[in-house]
Amino acid sequence: MRCSIRSRGGCVAERDFIADALVPLATSAAARGLADDAAVWAPPLGRELVFTHDVLACGVHYRPDDPPSDIAWKLLAVNLSDLAAMGAQPDGVLLGLGLSAAEDDVWRAAFTAGLERALTHFGVALWGGDTVSGLDRAVLGLTAIGNVLAGTALPRSGARAGDVVWVSGTIGDAGLGLSMLNGDRPVDKRLVNRFRRPTPRLALGRALTGVASACIDVSDGLLIDADRLARASGVELGIDIDAIPAFAAPTRADRLTRATAGDDYELLFTARPDADIAALAIATRTPVTRIGRVVAGNGVRAIAGGKDVTPARLGWEHI
Amino acid sequence: MRCSIRSRGGCVAERDFIADALVPLATSAAARGLADDAAVWAPPLGRELVFTHDVLACGVHYRPDDPPSDIAWKLLAVNLSDLAAMGAQPDGVLLGLGLSAAEDDVWRAAFTAGLERALTHFGVALWGGDTVSGLDRAVLGLTAIGNVLAGTALPRSGARAGDVVWVSGTIGDAGLGLSMLNGDRPVDKRLVNRFRRPTPRLALGRALTGVASACIDVSDGLLIDADRLARASGVELGIDIDAIPAFAAPTRADRLTRATAGDDYELLFTARPDADIAALAIATRTPVTRIGRVVAGNGVRAIAGGKDVTPARLGWEHI
Repeated sequence: MRCSIRSRGGCVAERDFIADALVPLATSAAARGLADDAAVWAPPLGRELVFTHDVLACGVHYRPDDPPSDIAWKLLAVNLSDLAAMGAQPDGVLLGLGLSAAEDDVWRAAFTAGLERALTHFGVALWGGDTVSGLDRAVLGLTAIGNVLAGTALPRSGARAGDVVWVSGTIGDAGLGLSMLNGDRPVDKRLVNRFRRPTPRLALGRALTGVASACIDVSDGLLIDADRLARASGVELGIDIDAIPAFAAPTRADRLTRATAGDDYELLFTARPDADIAALAIATRTPVTRIGRVVAGNGVRAIAGGKDVTPARLGWEHI
Repeated sequence: MRCSIRSRGGCVAERDFIADALVPLATSAAARGLADDAAVWAPPLGRELVFTHDVLACGVHYRPDDPPSDIAWKLLAVNLSDLAAMGAQPDGVLLGLGLSAAEDDVWRAAFTAGLERALTHFGVALWGGDTVSGLDRAVLGLTAIGNVLAGTALPRSGARAGDVVWVSGTIGDAGLGLSMLNGDRPVDKRLVNRFRRPTPRLALGRALTGVASACIDVSDGLLIDADRLARASGVELGIDIDAIPAFAAPTRADRLTRATAGDDYELLFTARPDADIAALAIATRTPVTRIGRVVAGNGVRAIAGGKDVTPARLGWEHI
């Protein structure tokens, strides 16, 4: 773990930030107290390792006035959601914090406290990282490392015609929460929290290994992520818009909008029709809903009342 | 691998950047063509894994007018240098690219081409990552993962009184190169390249496992990094300034300055006096020089002509 602010000739504040705030979080043996050049970790036998790295930029992925503890939570949660989508169990993380003057001591203390709570909550170790200050705005990167029984990582590409399409939780809550923060509608704290503090579906993801044929986490919108899974598998996913689980029984038009909203961090997956998904839902205490079927074709099709209602815009255009 | 530019409503350019430029680089099975939520990799048996993450910010760690291919090289090289300091062999990397408008298509193409050459040169796989655009300036993060025979990772904390202090290569070249780019002296391309394209001492690092008692890579200045190794070990490192290997036989004062310059990415290590370091140097084709001794104490002491010449500023103040 190092810090860098060479352009300003020294980084005492950053050194203190790491020593006082981050070193106490690096309690695992692998982190070596952040005192070596790198972390060292003995991987578990018979497991494959799963790696992901996501970046959150201030003003892009979170709002500048979001609570720093929630930003720390989200930074960890969105990465763990990628591990969940692979059926992996998280082990450790490395931070890459690019900070600006706006992230003052108060912000940093709140961020660190929130990060510690999130790491503890998910049982994940801080292994290392890097900090650079003096940027124009914050750019926060995190690498998450997890493990899965060898050969069981969930692909996007395994869906087959005849499979059933499932999704966890409710869809569109985070989009509603964001629109509330943008002043577009009255604030409901539950929905704002769904935007700021998403819950990676780790237990469900692990339970789906050996059961689901394909899986993806819904980060950019249910329809666009369904489209990605469909194209990776070379099939069509027919999604019944009326079946999509959503907060407070919206209209069909609202439900379609929510299916393109993003930031849900729910799991969208496919399985053979005889797979006992209900039992997994109960065992992992995760609500899951059947929302469609896999047929021959290529891409997603949104269906309502027997009609094709696929919108031109499926969600946030990422790859 | 995903890209994010939500604030501007879509990211077709970034999608093309990843699909056209980065996906062809992700040739290892672990990367899964960057098409899944995360990379999956079977770690080698009997090895421990080594993780590091360093960030390079434009204007802090590199100059805006540095060639993009050299920036890509340096981003990889500084991380591999951390692995080298642990005695590890690199396996894969994940990128976290935060880009601004200044990194246009021409820049990106050159960066990607340089990254491909660097990955090939060091035999490292691109496993995944994330891209975000629309920042005010570039912030480039990279996570490197390597492996080492279990129990042999080189610590900073193993130096003992009586050990000999060694360093690889020449010290201060990169600092000279940077001062040339800053217009402070006539340009010598060899030294500029030492700043822009550092060489991680991977072969030497691997050869030092089981031989060196402690090791660190010289990134912030020979003296400050020697100080860190000394304090981690609870000993004093006495460095003979006249013995420090340096370009073009500088004066003693110049040699002392170069020992605080940083960006060398050489290995500073300690070993018992009877360790045959010369043989390792020949086997790994890496020049190494004996520059001092470990004694009782705590910290670094610079010695010239029998006198203590330790400067107040030891190098770049990182942790």
